[in-house]
Amino acid sequence: MINKNIFAVIMAGGRGTRFWPASTKARPKQFMELLAGGTMLQKTADRFANISGAENVLVVTGADHKRIVANQLPLLPDKNLLLEPTGRNTAACIGWAAETLRRRGFAKSIMVVAASDHKIEPVEGFEKTIEKAVKLAEEGYLCTIGIPPSHPATGYGYLQKGEALSIGNKVLAFKEKPDGETALAYLESGEYLWNSGMFIWRVDTFLEELNTYMPKLCTSICNLPDTTSPSLNIYSALESESIDYGVMEKTRKAVVVPAEFEWSDIGDWLGARAAGVSKGEKILIDSENSLVFDETGRLTVLIGLNNVSVVSTDQATLVISDSSAQEIKNLVAELDKSKPELV
Amino acid sequence: MINKNIFAVIMAGGRGTRFWPASTKARPKQFMELLAGGTMLQKTADRFANISGAENVLVVTGADHKRIVANQLPLLPDKNLLLEPTGRNTAACIGWAAETLRRRGFAKSIMVVAASDHKIEPVEGFEKTIEKAVKLAEEGYLCTIGIPPSHPATGYGYLQKGEALSIGNKVLAFKEKPDGETALAYLESGEYLWNSGMFIWRVDTFLEELNTYMPKLCTSICNLPDTTSPSLNIYSALESESIDYGVMEKTRKAVVVPAEFEWSDIGDWLGARAAGVSKGEKILIDSENSLVFDETGRLTVLIGLNNVSVVSTDQATLVISDSSAQEIKNLVAELDKSKPELV
Repeated sequence: MINKNIFAVIMAGGRGTRFWPASTKARPKQFMELLAGGTMLQKTADRFANISGAENVLVVTGADHKRIVANQLPLLPDKNLLLEPTGRNTAACIGWAAETLRRRGFAKSIMVVAASDHKIEPVEGFEKTIEKAVKLAEEGYLCTIGIPPSHPATGYGYLQKGEALSIGNKVLAFKEKPDGETALAYLESGEYLWNSGMFIWRVDTFLEELNTYMPKLCTSICNLPDTTSPSLNIYSALESESIDYGVMEKTRKAVVVPAEFEWSDIGDWLGARAAGVSKGEKILIDSENSLVFDETGRLTVLIGLNNVSVVSTDQATLVISDSSAQEIKNLVAELDKSKPELV
Repeated sequence: MINKNIFAVIMAGGRGTRFWPASTKARPKQFMELLAGGTMLQKTADRFANISGAENVLVVTGADHKRIVANQLPLLPDKNLLLEPTGRNTAACIGWAAETLRRRGFAKSIMVVAASDHKIEPVEGFEKTIEKAVKLAEEGYLCTIGIPPSHPATGYGYLQKGEALSIGNKVLAFKEKPDGETALAYLESGEYLWNSGMFIWRVDTFLEELNTYMPKLCTSICNLPDTTSPSLNIYSALESESIDYGVMEKTRKAVVVPAEFEWSDIGDWLGARAAGVSKGEKILIDSENSLVFDETGRLTVLIGLNNVSVVSTDQATLVISDSSAQEIKNLVAELDKSKPELV
C-alpha cells in the first residue's frame, strides 16, 4: 500500500573510501552492485518506492554524482535529486532536505531518512517497522529505528531504551561506539539497541527541533536559495555537524522502534563479507573467512589464508587482512596525493 | 676466454607447475623473466656462451617449446635444440645429449650439464668454478658442483665430501632432502654441500659410466635414430630415472668442487622471493616477507599480511601463504581437469 504522505530521503553522499579499489571517487560504494540484484542505492530506493512511490523518494548526493544517480534511478524526477556541492555532514544534509519538503508544501508529511548503503532484509519486516515508526512520527516524535544487537559490536553506536510507549520506547541516551567491555555490558543488559541511523519524523517537528538545538544552521538553511544545486560558496558556509550530536542527543522527542528485519551496515570489506558479498570466480584452499571481489573476470585463488579480503579491479589488486581493515583509509589518503588517478 | 672444447647442455624441460599462474604449459618458468635482464633460460645460456661460445650451447627441451627456445636464443643453431617428445627424467635426457655429442665427434670434449632455472651470481665466480671442474673432468672424473650451505635447508639434496683432491673432494655419499634435524647436523659437521644438480665430465667418461650402471638405457640411447626430434614412440620407451639415482650415487668417479658463487634454485614462489623476484608496482603496508608478481600492469597493495605471495596475470590472481607453497601442485592438477585453459 503506497502512502503518499511519506517522503524518503536517501543520503547517498560519501566516497566509500573503505571499499577501495572497487569504490573510487567516480563510483562510491553506494553505486556499486555489492550484492546481486542492483546497487546499494537501487535496493534502498526500491524499498522506499514500495512504501511512498518513486516520486516521493529524494536522494541527497554529491553534485559530481548527479549523472550516476539519474542513471541508476531513472524513475526519480530531476527535482528529487538534491545535489551537494560539498559534504557538510548529516545535520545540514537532512535539514536541507526537510526545508525543501516544507517549501514544496509537505510540512505535515512524514520524512524517512536513510543511508543508501545498508543491507536490509526481508522487505516485509522493513515495511512493518516503518509503519510503526510512521505512527510515532505522526504523534510528533523524532523516531529512530534500533537494531536488536546480535553480538557486542564495537563498530556501531547504541541507543538506550527508556520509558515504554504504546509502540517502541523513549530514547534515554545515545551512546557512541563503545569498547568491547562496554558493548558486552550493553548486550547483556537488554536495554540497548544498535543505532541504525534511520530517522522518521514529521517535517515540521524536525524543523522545530533543528531550530531549537541548531538555530544557526536552521536559519542558514531557511535562507538557502530555491534550487536543488546550491553553489559551493553558499553550501559550504553551512555548519558541519552530525544529526546525532546536533539534534538527536539533545531533543526530548527521541523515540525508538525495534527493527523487525536483519540489518547490516556494509561499512568495509569485513562488513561486506558478513553480509555475503562475493564477486567473481574463486577457488579457496585451506582458506576460511575470506572475501573475493573480482571485477576483472579473472579467477582468484586463495591458498592457506584466513580472514583476508582480495579485491581486484582493472586498476589494482588489494589484499588486506581483517585486522588491518582500518588502514585502508590511510592508504587512500596517501594515494590521493601520489596516484590520484587510482582513487 | 672461450673454450671450444666445452659443450653446455641446458635442461629446459618441465612445466614449472609451482609458478602458476605466471607459468603455464605454454610458458614454463624457465621461459619467464623472473629477474630483470632476460628469462631464466636466456641468463643460463648467456653464462655458458661466455665459456663455450653460443654454438657449443645445447638445450634439451619439450618439443612443444621449440619455438619459444628458438625465439629466446636466436644465436643457437637449430641442431643444438634437442626436442623431447615427452619427459623421461634426467638420465635419459643427459644420456641422449652425451650420445649426440659423441656422434658429432666430441667424445673427448667436456660436457657441462645445468638446469635452466637457477639463479647464479656473480658470473666471475661461476666461471672460476667451472674452470676447476673442467680440470677434474679432463682427468676422468664425474664432477659435480656443491653449494656451501648457508642454512639447514630441507629442500635440497646434499653431497657428503670424502677424500680431498688437489681440487675439490671425492663424493662420499649423495643424500636425499633431509629433515630439519638432519639438515642441521649436516650444516654443523661442515662435511656437506648442497647438490646443485650441475655436472661436468668428459662425454666418453660419462657414457662409460652410464653403460656400467644403466646398461639398458645406454643401449637404447645408442640405438636412437640420428635426429634432434625423435618420435614419441621411440623416446617414451627409454627408461625413466634420475641421473643422481641411476649413475651419480653408484659411480666411484664422483667428485665435487665447491661453488664460488651465490646460487638459488628458484623452485617456487618462496624461492623466487628469496632470490629477489618482484614484478609490477606495489605498496606494502604492515606487510613483510611478501612477494608481488604482477604481469597486468596494475597496482598491487598488501595491508597487514606477512609471508604471502600475490601473483596476478591476465588469467588469474593467486594469493598463497608461504606455509601452503606445496599445495599449488595439487591446485594445478585440479585445474588441469576443471579449467585446462588456465594452466
